[in-house]
Amino acid sequence: MSTVREATYELLRAHEMTTMFGNPGSTELPMLAGFPDDFRYVLGLQEAAAVGMADGYAQASGTVGHVNLHTAPGVGNAMGAIFNAQANHTPLLVTAGQQVRAQMTMQANLTNRDAARVPHPLVKWSYEPPRAADVPAAIGRAIHTASLPPKGPAFVSIPMDDWTQEAAADGSERAVARRVSGRGSPAPELIAALADRLGRASNPVLVAGPDIDASGGWESAVALVERQRLPVWAIPATGGGRLGFPENHPNFQGLLPPAIAPLSEALAAHDLILVAGASAFAYYPYVAGDLLPAGAELVLITSDP
Amino acid sequence: MSTVREATYELLRAHEMTTMFGNPGSTELPMLAGFPDDFRYVLGLQEAAAVGMADGYAQASGTVGHVNLHTAPGVGNAMGAIFNAQANHTPLLVTAGQQVRAQMTMQANLTNRDAARVPHPLVKWSYEPPRAADVPAAIGRAIHTASLPPKGPAFVSIPMDDWTQEAAADGSERAVARRVSGRGSPAPELIAALADRLGRASNPVLVAGPDIDASGGWESAVALVERQRLPVWAIPATGGGRLGFPENHPNFQGLLPPAIAPLSEALAAHDLILVAGASAFAYYPYVAGDLLPAGAELVLITSDP
Amino acid sequence: MSTVREATYELLRAHEMTTMFGNPGSTELPMLAGFPDDFRYVLGLQEAAAVGMADGYAQASGTVGHVNLHTAPGVGNAMGAIFNAQANHTPLLVTAGQQVRAQMTMQANLTNRDAARVPHPLVKWSYEPPRAADVPAAIGRAIHTASLPPKGPAFVSIPMDDWTQEAAADGSERAVARRVSGRGSPAPELIAALADRLGRASNPVLVAGPDIDASGGWESAVALVERQRLPVWAIPATGGGRLGFPENHPNFQGLLPPAIAPLSEALAAHDLILVAGASAFAYYPYVAGDLLPAGAELVLITSDP
Amino acid sequence: MSTVREATYELLRAHEMTTMFGNPGSTELPMLAGFPDDFRYVLGLQEAAAVGMADGYAQASGTVGHVNLHTAPGVGNAMGAIFNAQANHTPLLVTAGQQVRAQMTMQANLTNRDAARVPHPLVKWSYEPPRAADVPAAIGRAIHTASLPPKGPAFVSIPMDDWTQEAAADGSERAVARRVSGRGSPAPELIAALADRLGRASNPVLVAGPDIDASGGWESAVALVERQRLPVWAIPATGGGRLGFPENHPNFQGLLPPAIAPLSEALAAHDLILVAGASAFAYYPYVAGDLLPAGAELVLITSDP
Repeated sequence: MSTVREATYELLRAHEMTTMFGNPGSTELPMLAGFPDDFRYVLGLQEAAAVGMADGYAQASGTVGHVNLHTAPGVGNAMGAIFNAQANHTPLLVTAGQQVRAQMTMQANLTNRDAARVPHPLVKWSYEPPRAADVPAAIGRAIHTASLPPKGPAFVSIPMDDWTQEAAADGSERAVARRVSGRGSPAPELIAALADRLGRASNPVLVAGPDIDASGGWESAVALVERQRLPVWAIPATGGGRLGFPENHPNFQGLLPPAIAPLSEALAAHDLILVAGASAFAYYPYVAGDLLPAGAELVLITSDP
Repeated sequence: MSTVREATYELLRAHEMTTMFGNPGSTELPMLAGFPDDFRYVLGLQEAAAVGMADGYAQASGTVGHVNLHTAPGVGNAMGAIFNAQANHTPLLVTAGQQVRAQMTMQANLTNRDAARVPHPLVKWSYEPPRAADVPAAIGRAIHTASLPPKGPAFVSIPMDDWTQEAAADGSERAVARRVSGRGSPAPELIAALADRLGRASNPVLVAGPDIDASGGWESAVALVERQRLPVWAIPATGGGRLGFPENHPNFQGLLPPAIAPLSEALAAHDLILVAGASAFAYYPYVAGDLLPAGAELVLITSDP
Repeated sequence: MSTVREATYELLRAHEMTTMFGNPGSTELPMLAGFPDDFRYVLGLQEAAAVGMADGYAQASGTVGHVNLHTAPGVGNAMGAIFNAQANHTPLLVTAGQQVRAQMTMQANLTNRDAARVPHPLVKWSYEPPRAADVPAAIGRAIHTASLPPKGPAFVSIPMDDWTQEAAADGSERAVARRVSGRGSPAPELIAALADRLGRASNPVLVAGPDIDASGGWESAVALVERQRLPVWAIPATGGGRLGFPENHPNFQGLLPPAIAPLSEALAAHDLILVAGASAFAYYPYVAGDLLPAGAELVLITSDP
Repeated sequence: MSTVREATYELLRAHEMTTMFGNPGSTELPMLAGFPDDFRYVLGLQEAAAVGMADGYAQASGTVGHVNLHTAPGVGNAMGAIFNAQANHTPLLVTAGQQVRAQMTMQANLTNRDAARVPHPLVKWSYEPPRAADVPAAIGRAIHTASLPPKGPAFVSIPMDDWTQEAAADGSERAVARRVSGRGSPAPELIAALADRLGRASNPVLVAGPDIDASGGWESAVALVERQRLPVWAIPATGGGRLGFPENHPNFQGLLPPAIAPLSEALAAHDLILVAGASAFAYYPYVAGDLLPAGAELVLITSDP
């Protein structure tokens, strides 16, 4: 078990985001408590300076920049510089502190009432997690979203009492190891690497999503499956309107169960899970469990950022 | 005929808003060209200072403050101080320049793409008029909205080529003379003044809206009409679901036509038009004309700000 | 201790809102489990019908109507009828189910991703509570907001696993007993009732907020305090920019501490707490405790809905 | 000169979008007046049916579907089905009628007050043009946006008096002939086609934008320019923070003037304009003229949808 703070710093480390810019206040102190030695915090005396430094640092370093702001007024002061960052296509993680959860609904002082709505017009994704446990996953998605082309800022609001809570332990911490091409394109070297990975897998499986058919890939999917002798599962209709693979094909295994634990069991023993043409996955009932079977890697080919 | 610029300065004069704070750029120059001698412009070198001065000035003077910003980055820089103004319940007109209309859809440089959405979470009303001719009416509504309790900021985005266009000439310039109690309450002295005005009218008329019934005022409306021997018109159902007055009452004249010119003709010769329980008026077909008959005054009792 | 479901039904009962309209799906089942005998649920087969019935029922009964929808598609289908409800000035509580909190950030199927943003343009308040414990308080505020003039709809999104969690036990359940004039006006009979209540109090206190000065009430506040021999506390500057009462007045007690437990202690032994010209209260550090001292009633005169 | 209606139908024809689904009202009549013989209109008796048909038609036909709605209530009723369309990744043009421009600011009946905000959470782009003349360009962009991966709906609100106005005549009607790969990827056949096009050009030119450097393409750009002996212009800094090409290179011509007519003059005589790493173009002063020199084609390589 790790705390939200520990899981978040680990995530930032994995993305080489150990430089943080900001102009913090009291709502950011729990994030900064026990600040790790391998990180540095560069203080700006006004938010425009802090965001501007993070913007330039991201452009020069090739990493996603990180700027840390102080609840509603801090985000407000930063909006002009966030406008510049989106115009510059700069990948930027913008985080802001928030009241403790117990005092948000009563709109106590320093509550950022419209936390996600204020930066929304200028960022690619704007979010306040519904539970403390989700903060690392939300920051992970913000980094991911910011780094996809066209690059830009993404925002996460974090209630100040979340940092000492327990992080989720469902395997979502593997998001730390997520790699994204960052090009939005099937570059030849990526295709070659995937072919190689597929060749080395001992027990690969294809999960076929609705966009295979939508993008005209029906016959290519059948050809791939037959050449590689892959078993095939399909995403249930709740994940989109179409079927991605012929149900009467001998390799077809059926529809994946739409819940975490059963889906992970259905894919057990596979070391490579290739999902194509889908958002992975369309869970509905909540049945807790590991997101992936032990030892499995997942490769996702999708148009859904 | 007057230009948008002339009509706007006349409107600001009528509200004693002859002090303007701001940090302008090129998109604000057409507003400032030929700046009138009886106005003063107080320059802030950063938007937080300009908004803060306007906020304090409004609080100290009792007028609606006016701050003038430079398209998207100016509004962005000001957001922290606009947050303070709404927390202070300060009545504030916030205006920002915008690209020329011909270059907005192509998102030319300095286009404020989300002009109304960015300040929206922090202001009481956020608007970009669909025609140059409507700029003075939009500014008039922003001033009105800002000054109703709880007071706060209101925002208007103004394409820079609007200032030299012709203002609307349908009588909406009389909005300059609009008086609002600013208390949101039927104070005894206001009731007395209205009774007196009704007594002095030579040919008054009641327009009955749906909220008369919704608020339990059906019998009071009948009593008023019989005591004052008022003719009564009703607002058509397109203005809300209910009828505000008994259709079989001898004083009932029918439903007002829902278009500008015919409605004005239907109320011709009345010197006092008392509208109760409605938003005045629910036009649908566009039949251009004067908003009110010549010589008429309109008093509106409404819960709709 | 009571569950969110128990506290919510108790709140609805106290507002005489025992008729619910809706078109539920699986995400609403936890709300409907153990549906109380004194409530009835009127089913609509499409959302437009469910909202329309709730709208008409509210108009005819004089209560706040309640319509219950099914996550994103249900709210989507209802938007046309919600538009009508706001045009009708109908007080309406709109609730919608949501995924379990653990599956929201991963955007599992049936997650209402933009739960508060979709209805936002058509309602007076749109909210998704940051904790299960806050659901009753959020619904209470939605009812309150919907019933203030101009009346209209208000929206709350409720994660489906919240209903069986524990409700907050800080005294906020007293919100059940909250009475609102619903007129937005200092009607003579309300003033008289307040004067009577003040006369009967054994140990009343005034809490003076910044809007006393902003609205020109400085001298009236001093006169009231001296006539009634009231002790006076002020709201700290974090609750707005101005002081509401002269600090050098002999009755002045100081600034209230800005945290729940100490503030409640500072006001201990008072049986009537009259707050004027403020939003009550501007807490910042989170120090848990009862919101009010035992036995105290609070009367709030404010322009903040 | 053509009217907005003529230009729009011509645009829809060019995209093979001659089937329209909808549930129109009076605000859509000016669009439907003189409905062309080569189009068909499929009526849905409720908006969910109209959107659903358009969604399925788009999926089956491979074109962008088109659904036409009736101002605010029509869009409201359609929101549930628009939610489905975005979940399905269906390319969909959603248009809705609006009051005449002269009656929008007064919020006359049938005004869609929050026209762009209501569908915003469910669509990829939501817009109401600031001038009648821009309606065809706005519809063109909506079609373009809807058809880029991940595909989805896009929305345009159209004041009902716009249809008979004159369309813009600045060359933007060439947008009719715009071709988009729809894959978001530099597929080998597209690269080959571009190389061929470059080879056939008699007088090509490169316009270098800031994302050439941001994406690590500096040396590739120099190599291309030297191999093809291309003159190079750069986008001024107002179009993004970086320079896209070495200013001291012998082929470097300078910064393009940031206004329509002078920019077109600077590129005169070129038959192929290759823009890389930029949003084309960052105009600021408005100097009317043709968007491109006579006879020129423009190819744009960009991450900006």
